[in-house]
Amino acid sequence: MKISIVGGNGPMGALFKGFFEKEGHTVQPLGRKDEDFYKERLCDSDVVIVSVPISVTNEVIRKIGPFIDPDSLLMDMTSIKVSPVEEMLKAFPGEVVGTHPLFGPSIDSLSGQIVVITPARGEKGLLWLTDTYKRNNVKVTLATPEEHDRFMALTQCVRTLNTMVLSKLIMDNHLDPKTVLEYSTPIFKAEMWWVGRLFSQDPELYAGIQMNNNMIGSIFNDYLAAGKELVDIITRKNKGRFSEFFKESADYYKEILDEAQIRSNEMINEITRE
Amino acid sequence: MKISIVGGNGPMGALFKGFFEKEGHTVQPLGRKDEDFYKERLCDSDVVIVSVPISVTNEVIRKIGPFIDPDSLLMDMTSIKVSPVEEMLKAFPGEVVGTHPLFGPSIDSLSGQIVVITPARGEKGLLWLTDTYKRNNVKVTLATPEEHDRFMALTQCVRTLNTMVLSKLIMDNHLDPKTVLEYSTPIFKAEMWWVGRLFSQDPELYAGIQMNNNMIGSIFNDYLAAGKELVDIITRKNKGRFSEFFKESADYYKEILDEAQIRSNEMINEITRE
Repeated sequence: MKISIVGGNGPMGALFKGFFEKEGHTVQPLGRKDEDFYKERLCDSDVVIVSVPISVTNEVIRKIGPFIDPDSLLMDMTSIKVSPVEEMLKAFPGEVVGTHPLFGPSIDSLSGQIVVITPARGEKGLLWLTDTYKRNNVKVTLATPEEHDRFMALTQCVRTLNTMVLSKLIMDNHLDPKTVLEYSTPIFKAEMWWVGRLFSQDPELYAGIQMNNNMIGSIFNDYLAAGKELVDIITRKNKGRFSEFFKESADYYKEILDEAQIRSNEMINEITRE
Repeated sequence: MKISIVGGNGPMGALFKGFFEKEGHTVQPLGRKDEDFYKERLCDSDVVIVSVPISVTNEVIRKIGPFIDPDSLLMDMTSIKVSPVEEMLKAFPGEVVGTHPLFGPSIDSLSGQIVVITPARGEKGLLWLTDTYKRNNVKVTLATPEEHDRFMALTQCVRTLNTMVLSKLIMDNHLDPKTVLEYSTPIFKAEMWWVGRLFSQDPELYAGIQMNNNMIGSIFNDYLAAGKELVDIITRKNKGRFSEFFKESADYYKEILDEAQIRSNEMINEITRE
């Protein structure tokens, strides 16, 4: 098959170019400089993948929609799903699938990684894609775009916010990062590595993820309220409520406690290794 | 040498019993049932280690202080340092060292782990202890009890609070933990493993760590304020301030960015491995 990746010269595009080439397909990466030739470059592709920054995703979809063969599959890889899927369905009459790979371009292999797939129109392309991923041990989570954005408000947006909060806390208290590491448990060392990792990256990407997810308002409110309530329990030394909260949590997470014990031990060994 | 560990039958005491026995010492663990015999059991020890829950640490120190040979070394292993070190200096006239191993009893080896040591009185015991640790590749961080408690308010107390906040957020939103894992980036999977790990443990231990650290009031306030300020930047879609914050952070953490990149990649590989 011929696969075109719009944004295929970026790091994520390059990762998937390699992946689909290994699968035996011909992959054509398209960048900004190809904009004037989208029509001729896209008309004979079997699959068109949009892999551009969130801020320009919808604009690119509107631009390329009319040039794609209606028998092709159009898919995106944006970190939000409600708005790009809507846009793809509007701009293109053929098969449409929304996807969100839950990893960045620095991974060694797609094996073991998760891709969330939000089916939108048609089945042929959807089946081809899920089969391709599953054959390569990529875990597929099927969801509606709304479900996706709701869970991502937690697993991406709250997570990023959290790392920003830790960073600000350390800066506001004028604590030297290297000294913090000397006082860090393995788990806090991990926090420091995530802090360092986040701020080595492009703020545009994270601003896009945070500011285009319509579900964050409510979950960010819950985040602030939870912080306030728990700080209150601790600073008032309410041991009874503190223990109750531990018991409620242990019960709520009971199905993952055993795996958490094993996996967290593995992580701690990895963090401590030199 | 003869080393007595008060609380030596608990999991941390047992870990250090094994460690000091490997070093060639005779280790005598003492538990609750030995209370009536503390005097005869402790009088000929070269080192006495207090390894009991925070809530009873000071009481145990007051009880055993008079029974220890003044030529011995008295040390504790509590997660806070200001109050137990004060108590040891009051209850015992000989050499005193405060210590805090920054790890739990489930680790495979002490190698690569950090122990914070707060020197209190005397040098002989202090040198013996730091030499023993360094020879076994245990990293020693020297600090005053106040410095220790200040950094721990961040690396232990804020960290635990943070994990509790995530837990509450997921419960309040009625999100199923196993489903959350299906939508988790590797970094969020790590969060879920820390959540599961925390609530598999004794709430008493964590209540003790949180509620006996006199520095948490101010850092918890900063934590809540940082959350509020950053949520505000994101929900108002203030991209300019968001990018500035990333740049300020990248600059503040510049000395650890390279290591963070390498170590976070290793962690992500470990988390993704099956």
